[in-house]
Amino acid sequence: MNTVQLDRLLQFLRFPSISTDPDYKADVAACAEWLAAELRVNGLEADVHPTAGHPIVVGRNRHVPGRRTVLIYGHYDVQPVDEPERSPGEPADPNRHWLSKPFEPTIKNDVLFARGAADNKGQIFAHITGIAETLDRTGDLPVNLILLVEGEEEIGSEHLEQFLIEHREELKCDIIAISDTGMIAKGVPTFTYGLRGIAAMEMKVVGPASDLHSGIYGGAVMNPATALARLISTLHDDQGRVAVPGFYDGVAPLADWERASWSRLPLCEADLVRLTGVTALAGEAGFSGFERIWARPTAEVNGIGGGFQGRGTKTVIPREAFAKLTFRLVPNQQPEKVLENVKAHLRAHCPPGVKLELTTGHSGEPYVTDPHSKAGEAAQRALRRAFPGKDIALIREGGSIPIVNTFKRVLGVETLLLGLALPDCRAHAPNENFPLENFAAGADMNRALLEELANL
Amino acid sequence: MNTVQLDRLLQFLRFPSISTDPDYKADVAACAEWLAAELRVNGLEADVHPTAGHPIVVGRNRHVPGRRTVLIYGHYDVQPVDEPERSPGEPADPNRHWLSKPFEPTIKNDVLFARGAADNKGQIFAHITGIAETLDRTGDLPVNLILLVEGEEEIGSEHLEQFLIEHREELKCDIIAISDTGMIAKGVPTFTYGLRGIAAMEMKVVGPASDLHSGIYGGAVMNPATALARLISTLHDDQGRVAVPGFYDGVAPLADWERASWSRLPLCEADLVRLTGVTALAGEAGFSGFERIWARPTAEVNGIGGGFQGRGTKTVIPREAFAKLTFRLVPNQQPEKVLENVKAHLRAHCPPGVKLELTTGHSGEPYVTDPHSKAGEAAQRALRRAFPGKDIALIREGGSIPIVNTFKRVLGVETLLLGLALPDCRAHAPNENFPLENFAAGADMNRALLEELANL
Repeated sequence: MNTVQLDRLLQFLRFPSISTDPDYKADVAACAEWLAAELRVNGLEADVHPTAGHPIVVGRNRHVPGRRTVLIYGHYDVQPVDEPERSPGEPADPNRHWLSKPFEPTIKNDVLFARGAADNKGQIFAHITGIAETLDRTGDLPVNLILLVEGEEEIGSEHLEQFLIEHREELKCDIIAISDTGMIAKGVPTFTYGLRGIAAMEMKVVGPASDLHSGIYGGAVMNPATALARLISTLHDDQGRVAVPGFYDGVAPLADWERASWSRLPLCEADLVRLTGVTALAGEAGFSGFERIWARPTAEVNGIGGGFQGRGTKTVIPREAFAKLTFRLVPNQQPEKVLENVKAHLRAHCPPGVKLELTTGHSGEPYVTDPHSKAGEAAQRALRRAFPGKDIALIREGGSIPIVNTFKRVLGVETLLLGLALPDCRAHAPNENFPLENFAAGADMNRALLEELANL
Repeated sequence: MNTVQLDRLLQFLRFPSISTDPDYKADVAACAEWLAAELRVNGLEADVHPTAGHPIVVGRNRHVPGRRTVLIYGHYDVQPVDEPERSPGEPADPNRHWLSKPFEPTIKNDVLFARGAADNKGQIFAHITGIAETLDRTGDLPVNLILLVEGEEEIGSEHLEQFLIEHREELKCDIIAISDTGMIAKGVPTFTYGLRGIAAMEMKVVGPASDLHSGIYGGAVMNPATALARLISTLHDDQGRVAVPGFYDGVAPLADWERASWSRLPLCEADLVRLTGVTALAGEAGFSGFERIWARPTAEVNGIGGGFQGRGTKTVIPREAFAKLTFRLVPNQQPEKVLENVKAHLRAHCPPGVKLELTTGHSGEPYVTDPHSKAGEAAQRALRRAFPGKDIALIREGGSIPIVNTFKRVLGVETLLLGLALPDCRAHAPNENFPLENFAAGADMNRALLEELANL
């Protein structure tokens, strides 16, 4: 990659395009405008489409009848910074604190550190760079290209489906490619053929009208934090299974070839321990760590809070306590049905003396496609060209890209997932990063991919 | 009360003497100095004694051999403000937000609103006002008086015991009186003969080295917030009893006369529902609401936190989660033994894959004294004189004043608890308040009390 390309990527990363926080709405919009201008500079037509939420950027080359049409999807929004406050003099802990400013991209040992470096600005910009290079070299692309970059991926792509429906004709395509997943290890090209779905909700347990003195009233009222904890404790049984009735209804079992193939991958449970920093893995009995992540559903607490959060002691019974919950789903679970079951389960277990407030969040369906389809094989050939001499890992991923299902439903098209992020990319955490070599490989992969798909 | 007295009380309340937060150390010290100066203006000798924490103020009149010596204890430190942030435009909720500034005392309908208005500045200042009035009128007090006002009551009176030991001779007395408890209802003089003890601790559950993407890793690691919730859920059984082995060892049963007397008090469980704002009471099976508060031990979560606390969704597995716990204790539980049992219980239930960090906080023993002793009867006569024509309620209280036990142990003296706060005084919560009429009655009660105790 040259310094002009790098400089443009750094510009892209400097926008604090945090979609979940209304305070950053203008930054998200500015990022979309910058991106459209960037596409135009590189020789594409580009439009910024407003939505009821954050805008969608669509770029395209001059389409030629008879050629394959390829849609490349990405997102320019990013996760919040979310860093705990440091006491004066407390040293930075790289696992909890940013060592460089999240929106002032920093390069160290050829690795780029910034919020969005991996998820997803770095990866989508690798495609844009590959496209720019091809256009620069040949004046054309081998396919009709549609580049669709949205600003609401981190909050459930709320307005994308409506956009797809309204622009179904302009977005007609043969295949979709996304680089928003990972490689299982440095240098191991990875083709992902499945994703988990997600269903999010928030539960709030409300008790007394205000915080109560825990001496003056303690013993006679249900403590909302205790009630919340009890409710959370009912989500799993002692085998690590989710204990919500009906939760596993319809869950597709793992195929024998998948279990066999995954057990031969060049990574093992010790890698998971090292990457996460836990003392030992945990989870559902009867499944390996990767099986649990890639092919089994989960119930997770993403945030919990209530009562006194400061230093020292405050002897209160908190007025209320909350938990933010997400459920990762696998084929063939339905997010709506799962949330319905969870809500019924929580209501059934709510102790007397407190009220339960349940709010539904975003959701997305799980996805699985055939890695041995024609398009799947073409994608794997492109990966081989970008990472010469390497075996390709065929995996599923634990994350969720709900839009993949929306594409299938609205546009009727399958999606190829060609991830470039490394396992220690720290997406959604402090010190998110992306190696410059993967950025270069991503641009190469884009050129190979468009060529391979042109010949489908 | 006259306007000069009121003005001085307001000055006292304006100090943000929050003992638990190091940021307010200078305010606590300034409050102590102000108080000593105030005692001197009123005709007492007064000293500010530094400690390793916050200073202790001691005032005394000219002692005359042969007279009874009465020590009146109070505290000038207050609880933190702790108010949730309001979104722009969100209306103030009086149960959660201060309607007036906590350290700008405000009078509405003859009720004084300020942090510390009831707990304990208003109450100790009623005594000081009574003393000042007697001195002003007669030039002397009927007893040898020691006024001891500390600055660490809200954080467990950490340095008071050492002070008592070092000043045992100067603090020698026949009886101690404290107004830091409540009246069971407006106009019902209340003599409190028992208090619960307390034992505080914090538990932190630590899992991965940093927050993890709940898609990329969810299912293979133990979620610290889930583990925390499970641990909290083991603290109680389904009968509302604390399920920690050994927790009830030595707990003194309620006497028949207490249960009978409490069932005849002019307040009922509906009052508890109204005062707390809960939909229904809860707690240990087999006991009434007041029995649970006054004579049964509890396990409470005062604060809980971990993971994403902001608006929207952030799909992380939090690195760690914490809970602040306090246990209210009754005779004859030992705080150290209780914490030992709780820690062993939590360690035994901690799921694999996370680490448990347990930190011991402050503690104080439970207390009970004989309401029918000579001093107890004298205190009740003083209450009758301050609240003429009213029946006296004999109760215990659910709060903790650990220093009462320290007085007994170090000085060998019993304590009379003559509370002036009303049930809706909102101690430890926003909009703490104290009626001006109770301030006046408190001053009257002080004069009657010193006379009654002089004739013991």
